[in-house]
Amino acid sequence: MALEAHPGATLHEQLEHALRDHIRSGRLPLGSRLPSSRALAAALGISRGVVLEAYAQLGAEGYLVSSQGAPTRVAFVPTAERPPIPAAELDVRHRYDFDPFLPDLVAFPRRAWLRSLRAAIQRAADADLGHGDPRGSAALRNELMRYLGRVRGAAPEPEHTLACAGWTQGFAVLCRALRARGVERIACEEPGWGQHRHVAQQAGLEPVPVAVDEHGIDVAALELSACEAVVVTASHQFPTGVALSPERRAALLEWAEDADGLVVEDDYDSELRYDRGSVGALQGLAPERVCLIGSVSKRLAPALRLGWILSPSWLTGALAYDKALADSSAPALDQLALADFIARGELDRHVRRMRARYRSRRAALLRALSDSLPAAQVSGVAAGLFALVLLPSGIQEQAVVTAAQGLGVGVEGLATHRLEGGPAGLIVGYAGLPEPAIARRVALLAEVISSC
Amino acid sequence: MALEAHPGATLHEQLEHALRDHIRSGRLPLGSRLPSSRALAAALGISRGVVLEAYAQLGAEGYLVSSQGAPTRVAFVPTAERPPIPAAELDVRHRYDFDPFLPDLVAFPRRAWLRSLRAAIQRAADADLGHGDPRGSAALRNELMRYLGRVRGAAPEPEHTLACAGWTQGFAVLCRALRARGVERIACEEPGWGQHRHVAQQAGLEPVPVAVDEHGIDVAALELSACEAVVVTASHQFPTGVALSPERRAALLEWAEDADGLVVEDDYDSELRYDRGSVGALQGLAPERVCLIGSVSKRLAPALRLGWILSPSWLTGALAYDKALADSSAPALDQLALADFIARGELDRHVRRMRARYRSRRAALLRALSDSLPAAQVSGVAAGLFALVLLPSGIQEQAVVTAAQGLGVGVEGLATHRLEGGPAGLIVGYAGLPEPAIARRVALLAEVISSC
Repeated sequence: MALEAHPGATLHEQLEHALRDHIRSGRLPLGSRLPSSRALAAALGISRGVVLEAYAQLGAEGYLVSSQGAPTRVAFVPTAERPPIPAAELDVRHRYDFDPFLPDLVAFPRRAWLRSLRAAIQRAADADLGHGDPRGSAALRNELMRYLGRVRGAAPEPEHTLACAGWTQGFAVLCRALRARGVERIACEEPGWGQHRHVAQQAGLEPVPVAVDEHGIDVAALELSACEAVVVTASHQFPTGVALSPERRAALLEWAEDADGLVVEDDYDSELRYDRGSVGALQGLAPERVCLIGSVSKRLAPALRLGWILSPSWLTGALAYDKALADSSAPALDQLALADFIARGELDRHVRRMRARYRSRRAALLRALSDSLPAAQVSGVAAGLFALVLLPSGIQEQAVVTAAQGLGVGVEGLATHRLEGGPAGLIVGYAGLPEPAIARRVALLAEVISSC
Repeated sequence: MALEAHPGATLHEQLEHALRDHIRSGRLPLGSRLPSSRALAAALGISRGVVLEAYAQLGAEGYLVSSQGAPTRVAFVPTAERPPIPAAELDVRHRYDFDPFLPDLVAFPRRAWLRSLRAAIQRAADADLGHGDPRGSAALRNELMRYLGRVRGAAPEPEHTLACAGWTQGFAVLCRALRARGVERIACEEPGWGQHRHVAQQAGLEPVPVAVDEHGIDVAALELSACEAVVVTASHQFPTGVALSPERRAALLEWAEDADGLVVEDDYDSELRYDRGSVGALQGLAPERVCLIGSVSKRLAPALRLGWILSPSWLTGALAYDKALADSSAPALDQLALADFIARGELDRHVRRMRARYRSRRAALLRALSDSLPAAQVSGVAAGLFALVLLPSGIQEQAVVTAAQGLGVGVEGLATHRLEGGPAGLIVGYAGLPEPAIARRVALLAEVISSC
């Protein structure tokens, strides 16, 4: 047995490590007798005290046992491996070429973000490094008030704003708070983002599909569903790309008032609108009826895992409680960095730069589609990071997706975001692809579709 | 109405903002007629196109309505405020002077952490900024394998290691995975950290108290409880400070084998042992029976919200699924920074520095206690950040806590970490206090106790 040197490890730690290894790997099986401390010390050329210390340590940990006078023996019983529990299928996001969920990651402002992180680390009070308010740092909640009020027409109040680890966590915390209040069902847009259903289900809510048409969610159908809550992508519906019409907005808020219902606004990409100013948040119209959840995922990068909840005042306490039990609070330095990043105007600058870039890519996509797929019906391109391309009837969506994958073109079909049937379609994200790549891939897609 | 200039906001955005404000605040109530676009443009000295754009925008958002030829009117119905739902009482961590949950925050290695963050930002691949593996970054999971194997005697496998947002999230995700498998009850140490019970309950598990004595958790009582899972602080029990004895370690693992049970090891502060090497993790003895959850909270700072789960192989898939639905994954840059911080040896260096510092503070505490409170029974000081001080019988714990607070000395009683009765005691955290402050506060505590 040789001792392996670890930087900073003492001799007895090295010996313990080596012994544990031998025991766990079965080289020293249960019941084997270890050399006396004197003999092992001599063999390894170390002092007997080190061996005694290591034997005592592994005795305390349960690897060895030695009774008065008797030799030290291995006490370790290796346990059998068990067959893995198959996980429910993960919503693993493949690295689609046409990923509708990703902004342009190449453009992530690394230097500006590092500058804000440095400012956060330098300015944080010592107490900021401890356990914080489960709602998040006051500095960030104040910046979000200014930013979301200005950019999203929202009506945030810092007291009722929570920082969270992105959209998924915000919605998970909210769903659990609703479940605890006795809510059992939540209406989801159909078609709608699959993750809405998965997260709601995980929190014990039954997701109820409610149809979306060209004006957004069908509020009459929502009324019939007898749900007490609904989650909507009001400004830019995923995946159809429509905006909820003014009449529907009014009807939805009226429903909330009459049914004592809660509207959850998934505000995922609304700053990125190309034809005019982005449609303001529903939350601004009825802050006591709408809970807005947003994040930096489409605005900056998903990997930051930073988001926000604008809660109705009556729900804040329940959300803070659930957030505290979900993960205590969001990481302080990241929150302070985001507050600094917004305060410096970096988020505005980045979104402005990206809007211009995505506008060109969107134009390239539309050109390529009209060149290569003139029969396809394209919609949802007023905002966001994707276009919905409906396939000519008779074409099987899954066949197209699979064949495209075969040619190395990853694209997502509508099916994953729908519980019920409907026309075949592809959700074509274009934010991460330079113009020439878009043209090449659309040409490949067209080949695939014509061969299907 | 005046337009307020926002940096980067266009004229029509400023006008929209001002109009929304007037409408929401009630200065323009429901049904009020707005000036014609021509009149408002003239009054504000802006072009009519800007006014038309703002009216259209607020029409789309539902604040205004204008039908063919008719004047534009306010369509906004403010909703009533509702009484807040009282939140279940939050486990708000007061800034105790003697906080047992906090390391020395003043010593947080800001420069070294910033260096690791810079390295993370510089080295991250573009794809790292997107959606990652719900188990976390492979770089961090590999570093954790080396670190926890070396420092904790654990047997981590990167494939079955998950990065998470600290201990609370790790345990919450685990409890939900157990609940989904049909587990209904989980044994918790009595006395034991209150948060174990709160998080388990929130995930739908019933926490069942099982007594702790001077050898750690009573495994015979655990067997009688008929629980299928148990959460233990094996290396340094909270709040009694005892280590699970070798016999109990063996008995606990035997229980897990016989009852097909899972042991959850809360490995919160075990690197910080003062009398000898820290007691190795239980997980190393039986990786298929023990799920270890640890974090950097006591080792570095709670505000980083970074932790790890060493999962039995059969549970990894279920945990990854739950983690994905909890918050997608841990923040990538923070994970890469921690990987770098460990790889550079900074975590070892910091823990080593802190061990020396805490050793002195612990000595100061013990001196002060034996000077001022010679009758008090002090235990649990072999490791960690706190001492358990049992009060002489007949003294009311809550009276001492309240009176101490009155003198400006925050200290936590045993009661919050116990479901059943037991001796009165204080959990005296000393990690954040310099020696003279410890002596002064212990003297005040002694005054309080003698007056109670």
